[in-house]
Amino acid sequence: MDQNELKKLVGEEAVKFIEDNMVVGLGTGSTVKFMVDALGARVKNEGLHIVGVPTSNRTAEQARSLGITVKSVDEVDHIDLTIDGADEISNDFQGIKGGGAAHLFEKIVATNSNKVMWIVDESKMVHKLGKFPLPLEVIPYGSKQVFKKLEKKGLHPEFRMDEQGKHVLTDSENYVIDLHLGEIDHPHELADYLIKEVGIVEQGLFLDMVNTVIVGRQDGPEVLQAR
Amino acid sequence: MDQNELKKLVGEEAVKFIEDNMVVGLGTGSTVKFMVDALGARVKNEGLHIVGVPTSNRTAEQARSLGITVKSVDEVDHIDLTIDGADEISNDFQGIKGGGAAHLFEKIVATNSNKVMWIVDESKMVHKLGKFPLPLEVIPYGSKQVFKKLEKKGLHPEFRMDEQGKHVLTDSENYVIDLHLGEIDHPHELADYLIKEVGIVEQGLFLDMVNTVIVGRQDGPEVLQAR
Repeated sequence: MDQNELKKLVGEEAVKFIEDNMVVGLGTGSTVKFMVDALGARVKNEGLHIVGVPTSNRTAEQARSLGITVKSVDEVDHIDLTIDGADEISNDFQGIKGGGAAHLFEKIVATNSNKVMWIVDESKMVHKLGKFPLPLEVIPYGSKQVFKKLEKKGLHPEFRMDEQGKHVLTDSENYVIDLHLGEIDHPHELADYLIKEVGIVEQGLFLDMVNTVIVGRQDGPEVLQAR
Repeated sequence: MDQNELKKLVGEEAVKFIEDNMVVGLGTGSTVKFMVDALGARVKNEGLHIVGVPTSNRTAEQARSLGITVKSVDEVDHIDLTIDGADEISNDFQGIKGGGAAHLFEKIVATNSNKVMWIVDESKMVHKLGKFPLPLEVIPYGSKQVFKKLEKKGLHPEFRMDEQGKHVLTDSENYVIDLHLGEIDHPHELADYLIKEVGIVEQGLFLDMVNTVIVGRQDGPEVLQAR
């Protein structure tokens, strides 16, 4: 099967976990797009009452176009289940997100969810985190000083720039710094250090957060229970 | 002496700590305004070479109008000394800032300074922190969920609104939540909890940060060495 067929199967597998009247956090990304399509089909065919809480404008538009009711995280009382992608998942089910510069909103939705599911192709499953650069969202004012501190600490920071050489901006108009770490030995300690650094709004380690992972394997989706 | 005379004396005392060729962080507030005036006078009369790093547009304009060179925190290599106000200082020299909704930029400048000085009138000196509401800067998306969590934890949150009933916005276009705590028994633990909460960009406790405090007493400025 090609990549898109695998992703489509994963998305279809994921929406089997969605029940009538659920509030569902909707992530962002290519696999999630197939999942939202599959959810739209269930809403249409089975008449499910679903409220979707999107993590991006792109997903919000897709969900609305499929007839899924869309609300912001502040308009719902709770979120039953959030289904999102991930950039890297270690074999103890810790994750890195933020390749799309949306990890702040994704983490806000995830931490307000009773259950979290990640859906990925098998290239995202790794032994140890860190080959994928760890994204930080940083306040522009003072960001060069933050960069210098990260550099001194040996964390190999790099500002994320667009093709015109301008800073990539998040939805909150902040900058992104990617840390090129290779391997992350102690993710909890690193997360602790980073979040306390003044000027860093959020970091891309999603620790002890995911309950279920669905991986797109060549022989079909594999469902893994993390916690 | 009236309040303004006391503040003026404190400002004049503070600038005695500034030496030629220093990079000086310039806070914001009524006492700081007198300090910047006094610094401007020294620059003019003594020909001092000073670079000022302001924490607000207001202070930047005042400094420029007095002939003080102004640079952003990202344009300087280091900051020798930052002089700022505070909303509350405990007798073990911990502080609360953010009454002016600028504590994020103030903390960015302070943490990049070799030395920090706070200049206050004596009403700001307290036994224990907490009578002054503790300001948090929060991301608007998800802020109602953050509010609910803080409420459940018994931290008495209140969104800061303007006279038109709209959210007060920080320079980073975020909301402010004030915590009405009365007394803060364990400021380090509270700071730790708050900064790890997803959606809180920065909190107003400035801990283990100040080196010198100048207090405006009726009988003149008192200089206190904190650490």
